[in-house]
Amino acid sequence: MKRTPFFLIAIACLLICSQSISYAADPLPSWNEGKTKQAIVNFVIKVSTAGSPDFVPVAKRIATFDNDGTLWAEQPMYVQAFFVFDRIKALAPQHPEWQTKEPFASVLKGDLQTALAGGENAVMEMVMTTHAGMTTGEFEQQVKDWLATARHPASKRPFTEMVYQPMLELLSYLRANDFKTFIVSGGGIEFMRPWAEKVYGIPPEQVIGSSIKTKFELREGKPVLVRLAEINFIDDKEGKPVGIHQHIGRRPIAAFGNSDGDLQMLQWIAAGSGTTFCLYVHHTDAEREWTYDRQSHTGRLDKGLDEAKAKGWTVVDMKNDWNVVFTK
Amino acid sequence: MKRTPFFLIAIACLLICSQSISYAADPLPSWNEGKTKQAIVNFVIKVSTAGSPDFVPVAKRIATFDNDGTLWAEQPMYVQAFFVFDRIKALAPQHPEWQTKEPFASVLKGDLQTALAGGENAVMEMVMTTHAGMTTGEFEQQVKDWLATARHPASKRPFTEMVYQPMLELLSYLRANDFKTFIVSGGGIEFMRPWAEKVYGIPPEQVIGSSIKTKFELREGKPVLVRLAEINFIDDKEGKPVGIHQHIGRRPIAAFGNSDGDLQMLQWIAAGSGTTFCLYVHHTDAEREWTYDRQSHTGRLDKGLDEAKAKGWTVVDMKNDWNVVFTK
Repeated sequence: MKRTPFFLIAIACLLICSQSISYAADPLPSWNEGKTKQAIVNFVIKVSTAGSPDFVPVAKRIATFDNDGTLWAEQPMYVQAFFVFDRIKALAPQHPEWQTKEPFASVLKGDLQTALAGGENAVMEMVMTTHAGMTTGEFEQQVKDWLATARHPASKRPFTEMVYQPMLELLSYLRANDFKTFIVSGGGIEFMRPWAEKVYGIPPEQVIGSSIKTKFELREGKPVLVRLAEINFIDDKEGKPVGIHQHIGRRPIAAFGNSDGDLQMLQWIAAGSGTTFCLYVHHTDAEREWTYDRQSHTGRLDKGLDEAKAKGWTVVDMKNDWNVVFTK
Repeated sequence: MKRTPFFLIAIACLLICSQSISYAADPLPSWNEGKTKQAIVNFVIKVSTAGSPDFVPVAKRIATFDNDGTLWAEQPMYVQAFFVFDRIKALAPQHPEWQTKEPFASVLKGDLQTALAGGENAVMEMVMTTHAGMTTGEFEQQVKDWLATARHPASKRPFTEMVYQPMLELLSYLRANDFKTFIVSGGGIEFMRPWAEKVYGIPPEQVIGSSIKTKFELREGKPVLVRLAEINFIDDKEGKPVGIHQHIGRRPIAAFGNSDGDLQMLQWIAAGSGTTFCLYVHHTDAEREWTYDRQSHTGRLDKGLDEAKAKGWTVVDMKNDWNVVFTK
């Protein structure tokens, strides 16, 4: 008789404990059970379990993530393109000549198709006009100010809320297992850094992206870095492994992307020694997000889809693998 | 009577504890007591003490260190120059034409003065011949192989032992106070990364340096990064704040250098908001190391010395501030 209460208490404790264990054991609640989620969890357990033949020391647990279409939405066009057009509108009063000068005239009329019809030259002109000429500190403030009020045209939500909840959980899960998480994006490095730490938990020194050159100057004795209208680095396609090597200096063991622009990054990681993990996010959810792959202008996933199949990389079926898409 | 033994034990415990506390309280044993050491300790305590008006959150505790002459010796010439000359000798059998072609012919005869007489063009030719054309993996191996056998001409010690013990303690002390420590060097980024983690505890992703361009290629389906004979970035003088911004993306709060090549880095850090710390290592010890400053070809410290005095930056008097110079 004396033993029974203790026994019951012990059972109760076990139940409570096992409940909290089971809660702690699902770090990816927005991911539906299935082979995609299992592949992620299996990889993380393998490389982070001491004594496992696939164990990877903490210093080498590096994971790289594309941004546009992998961590946040890239439709109907890249977020940074909205920034460019809005900045042109904001700067227009200082540039009366833009009323008749392409591509600016079309942007001011809201006719983005015509504005973009000028091709790469037109795009470069718009990018440099809005991204160069100021100090690095001034540009950072412009990005922050814009993000504070800009809204996605479809959802009317701030762009920094158009991020994928399952990917936020994945970032946290990797970091909880001592991974260092990096962004490796074709987007502007200085466009991402002002908000990546707050939104993704990724500090500026772990953001890799495209860049323009900057120049050190003393202005009345005060040092500034001035942004120049000259490309420094394009962190896309073949540029991604180059950018990774330049910034990180060793090969990551996991890479996450969503388009052919990420293919070389995934190839580079997959060719590393030891256990590696490559994942493509496939946009298959027309209701909650957008459906696009082989034919899309933004975020085309064609060669990458074939190579993922051939090499057994993990492909997220957004519609079926995610029970939530955007962060709440 | 009964109390006495316990009392004695308590006293003994206190003595033992206070001894270990006093040991733990000097994280910089190779630094002599004095204003230099005190300035370092004061800064670290100020920024890392919660509630202090100068407190800096961990994420912003970033410190950047020059390498040549700040962390390891740079006399009689940069270590990387020894590497260049030794590689030329190693490659000579594959280049019979070098026997009569400058600057290679002079290097092979051991006449470095004549080899360098060709100025910047000669230097670039020697650097590119020895640093480009191979994959990043091959180059890394060449650096490691060379360091395993190369010796400093004066001390006959491996170059990786020509590092300053007081600076190793300083790196550890900063990291113990949650600083992220970076190298920001004019030297080659890929020349430093293969050994910086082992020698300094600084991982590859926290090494910033000069670089040549690399190119992603698939060789028989296997991705490689090939090193090209084209300058990508010179991380010296005005380049240092640019490199810092490119890699780290926020302004460090402490910077350590030894030459005019570090001046712009120190200016950039000193101009940050909040409490900052700038330090110059002044080579004043002819017996244990070398004495050089305003007139030196390698590691000239002229303008920097004046600016340090004018701005109240900390200047290490190597002879008097350090009781040990090189690591044992």
